Parts: sequence; C-alpha cells; structure tokens
Amino acid sequence: MKNVAIPPAVTRLIETFSELPGIGPKTASRLTFYHLRGKSELALSLAKELQNLVEKTRFCSICYNVTEEDPCPICSDESRDKKVLCVVAEPLDLLALERTEQYTGSYHVLHGALAPLEGIFAEDLRIKELEARLRKGGVEEVILATNPTSEGDYTAAYLLTRLKPLGVRITRLGRGLPMGGDLEYADAVTLTRALEARQEL
Amino acid sequence: MKNVAIPPAVTRLIETFSELPGIGPKTASRLTFYHLRGKSELALSLAKELQNLVEKTRFCSICYNVTEEDPCPICSDESRDKKVLCVVAEPLDLLALERTEQYTGSYHVLHGALAPLEGIFAEDLRIKELEARLRKGGVEEVILATNPTSEGDYTAAYLLTRLKPLGVRITRLGRGLPMGGDLEYADAVTLTRALEARQEL
Repeated sequence: MKNVAIPPAVTRLIETFSELPGIGPKTASRLTFYHLRGKSELALSLAKELQNLVEKTRFCSICYNVTEEDPCPICSDESRDKKVLCVVAEPLDLLALERTEQYTGSYHVLHGALAPLEGIFAEDLRIKELEARLRKGGVEEVILATNPTSEGDYTAAYLLTRLKPLGVRITRLGRGLPMGGDLEYADAVTLTRALEARQEL
Repeated sequence: MKNVAIPPAVTRLIETFSELPGIGPKTASRLTFYHLRGKSELALSLAKELQNLVEKTRFCSICYNVTEEDPCPICSDESRDKKVLCVVAEPLDLLALERTEQYTGSYHVLHGALAPLEGIFAEDLRIKELEARLRKGGVEEVILATNPTSEGDYTAAYLLTRLKPLGVRITRLGRGLPMGGDLEYADAVTLTRALEARQEL
C-alpha cells in the first residue's frame, strides 16, 4: 500500500488496525477510510475509549477479572458464595456464565489456557494465584470451567493434578449435547461425552 | 451486555467498536478484550493514530482525495496529465487505479454514489466541485470510473447528462470479463456487457 496517493496518517492507521486479531489489510483499510467520510467524531470517541480502557481498567487482585474498582464488584459482593470458585480462561467466559444468572459463587480468571506448542505454560497463567487463594482456606469447591477443547481439557487436567493435594472438591462443567443441537450433526466426541454423561430418567 | 461483571470502560469501548462498519457486538467484544490481555501499547497506539488521522488529514481542495498537504501530491505533481480527469466514488477506488501504475491523469473523488433510496443525492457528492473544475477549462476528457453496480451506473448516467453541456469528452471504464474469471460462472449482465464490448482481432 506504499503509494503517493495515500497519506502517511492513513497508512499508519491501516497498519495499526491490521494488528488487531481477525482484522486483515482489507478490513483495516475499510475501517480507516470509514473514518475519513466525515466520521471524525467516531474516530475521536474510539480514541478516547481506548485510552480510557487502558487508564481505568485493571485486574481484580482477588479473581483477576477485568475491573475498574479493586476488588471487583463480584469479589466485593457479600451475597456471592465465596465457598465455590469457578475457574475460567478469559473474562468473556466469566461473562457468559454471569449471563446464565444461575451461578452465585466466585470466579478465578486464568487469562489463557495451557498451550505449550504456542509457548503458553503454567507460569503464564494465574495458577499460582489460584493456589494461594485455595491455601488461604474457605473454598470448598473448585469448578473447572475451561473450554471444551483440547487446550481447555489439558488445562483442566493440569489444574486437577496441581490442586488435588490441597484437599478441595474439584468438579468440571457437564458435557453433552448443546441445547438446540441436532443429533445428526453432532460430532463424535460430543456424542461420546453425551453417552458417558447419560442420566437416569 | 449490562452486567455487573463488566466495567463501564469495557462496555463503552465495545459499544464504540460496534459502531464501525461490519463490526458486530461479538467482534467488538473480542477486539476490546484483546486489548485487556496486556496489549495496552496497541490500544494506545490505535488511539494515537485515530487522533492523528482526524488532525492531520483533510480533503484536497482540487480533487477531494484524502491528503495531508493541500493540494495533494497527485494534484501538485507536474508530470500528471491535467487534461484527463478520472472521476471515482471513493479514495479507495483512486488507490486501486494508482496501483495499476498505468494511469497518469488527474482524479476527482465524489465521496459516494447516488442512492436516492438511502438519501444520497447529487448535492451530497462533490459534483458541483467537478463542474467548477471543468468550467475552468483545461480538461479534455472525463473518465467516469464509478463502480460497475446499479448505483455506480446510475451515478455515471447522471453525471453524463449533467456534464455533457460542458462540451468535454466523457468516457467510462470498459466492461467485460475480469482477468482470471471463468466464463461458466460469469453472470448474465457481465456476459451481456462483454458481448456488447467485443473487439475485432
């Protein structure tokens, strides 16, 4: 895209947009040129909100969820059950669980899943912090809510061996057919897990 | 996404990202949470480049392309042919033509195409400015390089009737089969245009 017709300020914004995940050069230039069509308020408010995000948010020192106040609203909520701890990989997973409005316990955000081939090891996740929380006592059950993927399962298996000695009950989310799913199109692994997890009626 | 688990700074950035074209709420939250995983430099540089874009770029007062200097590098380039004017809808179209490295004339950017149903009328485009340029004299040919779509064709037809009285030669880009295309999959309109534009060998 080196071209006399395109000013440096435009090229640089295209390049910066391209660094975002899932944004290729075509989308990046579409996003950039969109701002050039008299949408400067949106460009400026996006700039402001990005700065705001960096300045105002941090990780909760207890559960490592993203928060503006430390401890986060969930950790400082007296009505949440501190005896149950749900371990998730990302803040978005925590959000998904909150949307169920069924879970009333606490959380622990690992900030990733183990992926040794991609260079993500145990020390890159908030596992030490999780151990420290459990050692402090008061937690009776840890729900491993990692993703139902090979990386998520590997992370859960690793956490199981590492947390077992601490003498706390460890569970994981149930496996089976998703709601609205179609048996015909269910993959073999999901069906196997659903068979294994079959329930008496 | 109203949720105690998600701080306002995060919600607002998600909402702002969602206003960008082609970015839905899922992508917006993925983009936002990406910045929360220790990528604050990228968030800040994106903020900086957005501000920079708004502050530094403007439209060239001659051709209305996006530029940092006025007139833009193409308009102030003595070696470009000022007798030929290529009319495009968007700066990205101009860039596409520049990439051919075959066109040595000047440009005029309309900033849109006529779409009365969407409320885009002639007065919303830089058509008055185009007329003024032609009235000044010196231009011998106007190439209408609007998109080969119904809106682009409509815009070209409108420009033809409006510019014809100015006594300048008006052409448009050739129509036919694109390079690398497959006759079997070519749509009927493209094939019709290709037949009409068939050339003696």
